[in-house]
Amino acid sequence: MEQSITIRVRYPEVDAMGYLHHSRFLQYFEMGRIELLRSLGFSYADLEKQGVFFVVVKVECRYKAPARYDEELTLVTRVVKQTQVRIDHAYELRRDGILLAEANTTIACVGRDGQLMAIPDFLAPKE
Amino acid sequence: MEQSITIRVRYPEVDAMGYLHHSRFLQYFEMGRIELLRSLGFSYADLEKQGVFFVVVKVECRYKAPARYDEELTLVTRVVKQTQVRIDHAYELRRDGILLAEANTTIACVGRDGQLMAIPDFLAPKE
Amino acid sequence: MEQSITIRVRYPEVDAMGYLHHSRFLQYFEMGRIELLRSLGFSYADLEKQGVFFVVVKVECRYKAPARYDEELTLVTRVVKQTQVRIDHAYELRRDGILLAEANTTIACVGRDGQLMAIPDFLAPKE
Amino acid sequence: MEQSITIRVRYPEVDAMGYLHHSRFLQYFEMGRIELLRSLGFSYADLEKQGVFFVVVKVECRYKAPARYDEELTLVTRVVKQTQVRIDHAYELRRDGILLAEANTTIACVGRDGQLMAIPDFLAPKE
Repeated sequence: MEQSITIRVRYPEVDAMGYLHHSRFLQYFEMGRIELLRSLGFSYADLEKQGVFFVVVKVECRYKAPARYDEELTLVTRVVKQTQVRIDHAYELRRDGILLAEANTTIACVGRDGQLMAIPDFLAPKE
Repeated sequence: MEQSITIRVRYPEVDAMGYLHHSRFLQYFEMGRIELLRSLGFSYADLEKQGVFFVVVKVECRYKAPARYDEELTLVTRVVKQTQVRIDHAYELRRDGILLAEANTTIACVGRDGQLMAIPDFLAPKE
Repeated sequence: MEQSITIRVRYPEVDAMGYLHHSRFLQYFEMGRIELLRSLGFSYADLEKQGVFFVVVKVECRYKAPARYDEELTLVTRVVKQTQVRIDHAYELRRDGILLAEANTTIACVGRDGQLMAIPDFLAPKE
Repeated sequence: MEQSITIRVRYPEVDAMGYLHHSRFLQYFEMGRIELLRSLGFSYADLEKQGVFFVVVKVECRYKAPARYDEELTLVTRVVKQTQVRIDHAYELRRDGILLAEANTTIACVGRDGQLMAIPDFLAPKE
């Protein structure tokens, strides 16, 4: 399971150095997860309406090169591992093939009360 | 009713020009409204828990001079007018007395359903 | 001169009410201006490299209805008036034809030093 | 070298779940680094004017519990290791003693051209 999206860097996302702020990369990775889910036929907005939430419990990001305003970036997102309650994703963000950042995240499934819950069966990876 | 707060410009709030992004001013004005409310003894977080929300229905902002990263700004917020469902605020944002921006907003009281509702009596201005 | 773009509301752009934060609308309007410029053959990123900057000097926005996470919005941006140093834009943001917000901005052309300068001839409206 | 700061969660920093968005934690950690520097007598804004920049090359963050709008959080930032070009920091973000997140970052010193450079002597840790 892998999905590629294109993101254009917005003006208020860069900082005084003219670089995409390092915190914004995490927002792009979230977009990658959401579009990967959509490509599998699921809307995260709908999941939340049904009481299924995913929270980020761990992030690791290695920044290799800066991204600048108005550049078009390509983000590849893939599922690395899925357990009953957690999903691990890996990300590669590139501009014209040049690797800008690599990252890994772990998200956990929680209910409306914020407590851990099993990932619904319909989201389980197909055999 | 008037309240003054100090805000230090954060790094990811400035843009590639090194200026506080014009959209961020509105976030500062919201902080001004919230602190004005707190100075009157009310917590906006608590109001929301009680089902009392305020949404912005109108903003006018005139930008006079830029603010830069790490500068300490002073924001004066005051109530200009209050009706049964709306409150008008005025704002002046300054650095060392220099006017950076003047603004006016109208907020409306809504319930959990997003429908207009009367501002609770305990928030009504004292005679 | 008018340009329409589609914007999908991102997760960190909505607030605790689940509504697109009112400050984010201004970031969308900026995207509208930039894409209008691109449709005319100009890159704002390139203009900045040439020392031509535009700063927002005035914003008026009337919010009519909320936008929510993951909704696809349509923003129409048009030039209302252009003088030697200023451009006035008008905006209409809609979801499925429903008007969510109307706005007007004035931007001014400045140089690297932040001082007003004449809008370069190549950006002047064609007769 | 360790520094503690207090941060109140702002309204547009929380997401539709009412939780501080996970990307915002990185912005808080940056504030921690900047205030740690200030406590040592240095202004990051001034360093940048002198052509000394720090870019984030690595982030690891483990999220333990959510933070909500208007909560007052305490962030402890400390230097773990400093080489000629890099500084490693560790962070603990708490609310009323409860650990919300632990993180580590590596920042590298770069010049105006974005190339690695030695951290200036005046920033070297005192013996």
